[in-house]
Amino acid sequence: MLKMAEPIIHHRNPEFNEVFTRVNRNLKYLFQTTQPVVTLTSSGTGGVEATFVSLFSPGDTIISVNGGKFGERWVKMPRAFGMNVVEIKTAWGKAPHADQILDALRKNPQAKAVYLVHSETSTGTATDVKTMAGLIRDNSNALICVDGITAVGAHELRFDEWNIDVCVTGSQKGLMIPPGLAFVALSRKAIEAMEKSTAPKFYFDLRKALKSYEANDTPFTPAVSLIVGVDAALEMIRNEGIENVWARHELLASALRAGIEALGLRLFSDSPSFAVTPVWVPDGIAWKSFNKILKIDNGITIAGGQDDYKDRIFRVSHLGYYDELDMLAFVGALERTLAALNYSFEAGAGLAATQNVFLSHRANAMA
Amino acid sequence: MLKMAEPIIHHRNPEFNEVFTRVNRNLKYLFQTTQPVVTLTSSGTGGVEATFVSLFSPGDTIISVNGGKFGERWVKMPRAFGMNVVEIKTAWGKAPHADQILDALRKNPQAKAVYLVHSETSTGTATDVKTMAGLIRDNSNALICVDGITAVGAHELRFDEWNIDVCVTGSQKGLMIPPGLAFVALSRKAIEAMEKSTAPKFYFDLRKALKSYEANDTPFTPAVSLIVGVDAALEMIRNEGIENVWARHELLASALRAGIEALGLRLFSDSPSFAVTPVWVPDGIAWKSFNKILKIDNGITIAGGQDDYKDRIFRVSHLGYYDELDMLAFVGALERTLAALNYSFEAGAGLAATQNVFLSHRANAMA
Repeated sequence: MLKMAEPIIHHRNPEFNEVFTRVNRNLKYLFQTTQPVVTLTSSGTGGVEATFVSLFSPGDTIISVNGGKFGERWVKMPRAFGMNVVEIKTAWGKAPHADQILDALRKNPQAKAVYLVHSETSTGTATDVKTMAGLIRDNSNALICVDGITAVGAHELRFDEWNIDVCVTGSQKGLMIPPGLAFVALSRKAIEAMEKSTAPKFYFDLRKALKSYEANDTPFTPAVSLIVGVDAALEMIRNEGIENVWARHELLASALRAGIEALGLRLFSDSPSFAVTPVWVPDGIAWKSFNKILKIDNGITIAGGQDDYKDRIFRVSHLGYYDELDMLAFVGALERTLAALNYSFEAGAGLAATQNVFLSHRANAMA
Repeated sequence: MLKMAEPIIHHRNPEFNEVFTRVNRNLKYLFQTTQPVVTLTSSGTGGVEATFVSLFSPGDTIISVNGGKFGERWVKMPRAFGMNVVEIKTAWGKAPHADQILDALRKNPQAKAVYLVHSETSTGTATDVKTMAGLIRDNSNALICVDGITAVGAHELRFDEWNIDVCVTGSQKGLMIPPGLAFVALSRKAIEAMEKSTAPKFYFDLRKALKSYEANDTPFTPAVSLIVGVDAALEMIRNEGIENVWARHELLASALRAGIEALGLRLFSDSPSFAVTPVWVPDGIAWKSFNKILKIDNGITIAGGQDDYKDRIFRVSHLGYYDELDMLAFVGALERTLAALNYSFEAGAGLAATQNVFLSHRANAMA
């Protein structure tokens, strides 16, 4: 954060070029790719829009998996640009099945792309991108496009090895800095697709972004302070090692789930994300009082449910620079909040279960 | 800057809502309007794109004044969205004449809008928006759209009083914070025009932005740290008073021009901006050595010319939190650089001329 408070470098100056060259190199490491990863000044949504308008044309068929608020957005968005969207709808909290995707590909052999949400934030549900990408590649020529906005830096992702064509992330998730930047990795096949795209575009034209990228530049004024911030964040990730970052997220998520279940609470998703854990609000507890006690008395900020699940689930984030003690602190605060609301549970049971996961992980690692 | 380094507030939290409510109120003051000013996470270019795709449709006629790099962009951009662009080309360094605009309106009575660049950064040239807006309003129903990206906060602008329909600015200019946000003021007539627009859009859909704006929210994750920064910047502007901010920019610009001319250098623009002053590189002086001495030996960063004027002009910014002593420091550094390059001039003449403008201004103010 303090790095971002330093005097702003002008984006046409050599100092900025040096920073951006390093950022571009480290983004390849983050995505595990040798392909370009371009930077746009927008939220992650803008990054996904850039892929639709730059790679496809009105009338093109796009298969899009909708299992939550973000999947829903990737159905509406290509429709807004005149594309023909085949929607694969999954219940909230469920990941798509291989059969659903294979069936859609069989019925729509003309499909130009399949859009998958790696980690759906609204439902805390992860899609097995590795398996799905393999299936799609074996059965179709469609581009494999991944919304990695909350997954990159939390879930294993190997862009080149898994044959992914497009993956988008944002600055405020696994990259741990404030929102305002989107990053888009593009395979050779994705770059070739740009030549055929007739969708109208200017700001989100990835051909422009790619051309500037080759000179470690951007076509329009970038969010300079955020790029300086992401430079520091990428160095942190490089120092920790991307495999270690993925493993840390998996460990934090599983320990947290153990703690929550030990208190008798039920998890919402049957394919839980390593970035965010959604939990049913227990019967007899009002979401509003629950959230208030957690926030005011314990200083913990969580998110509620959306749409049909408003006031019915809560979501705990563990994405970015969280560590094991943060998870213990959260479970501790959760126990205190439940106690204040006269929910019946064995005091310390959540903490013990969480701690057990950490300690047995450590023991295994040392063995 | 330090304000932006504080822990990030989640954009769906009440703390953020409080900040954004104040930002929205102060943006109205900045633009001198009672109309909405919506915030987008993008560079200023994205803000202008939002106005094209949200207010107009493919086939619509747009009159666009092109007197430099940015004017040129506002010709290319609507063309990319299938609009019919009537280009008014002016020589670099010249502002558009009233006749040119009236002539274009007469020949294109179907024109939906006239786009003006208030301060063209590439040429340091200001357009008399007040006069032009009056003329357009008297002779046409076209929407008056102003690229205020480097002008807002430097040049007088009265959105309501001057009958402007659209004005866009960015965070990194008069608002003094890093790039990454665009702000768009919209008249009632501009808001009505949105209902008829058929251009495809999603991220830059101003109807979405406006709907969220009414709840002091944004449709997509905003660049939170930049919004916290702009909150502080707008408070600074409010405390100084917008008229005083405009007057300060005019004074700094005219004092700087006096200093530059006293050294025998020639100004590039015949309608100089209060945000940036472009100057011809003197004969016999190489731009590269000039810029290097200014930067390395004097710590001063300036910008060069673009396109045909590359290596031929230099541009000095005085937009944002500059003060009188900054101008004296610049003229001092300019004299030292010219001396190092054996350019012949009377030592101190530039400084004296600059100082004279400041001191006589002060004397007049006290009289």
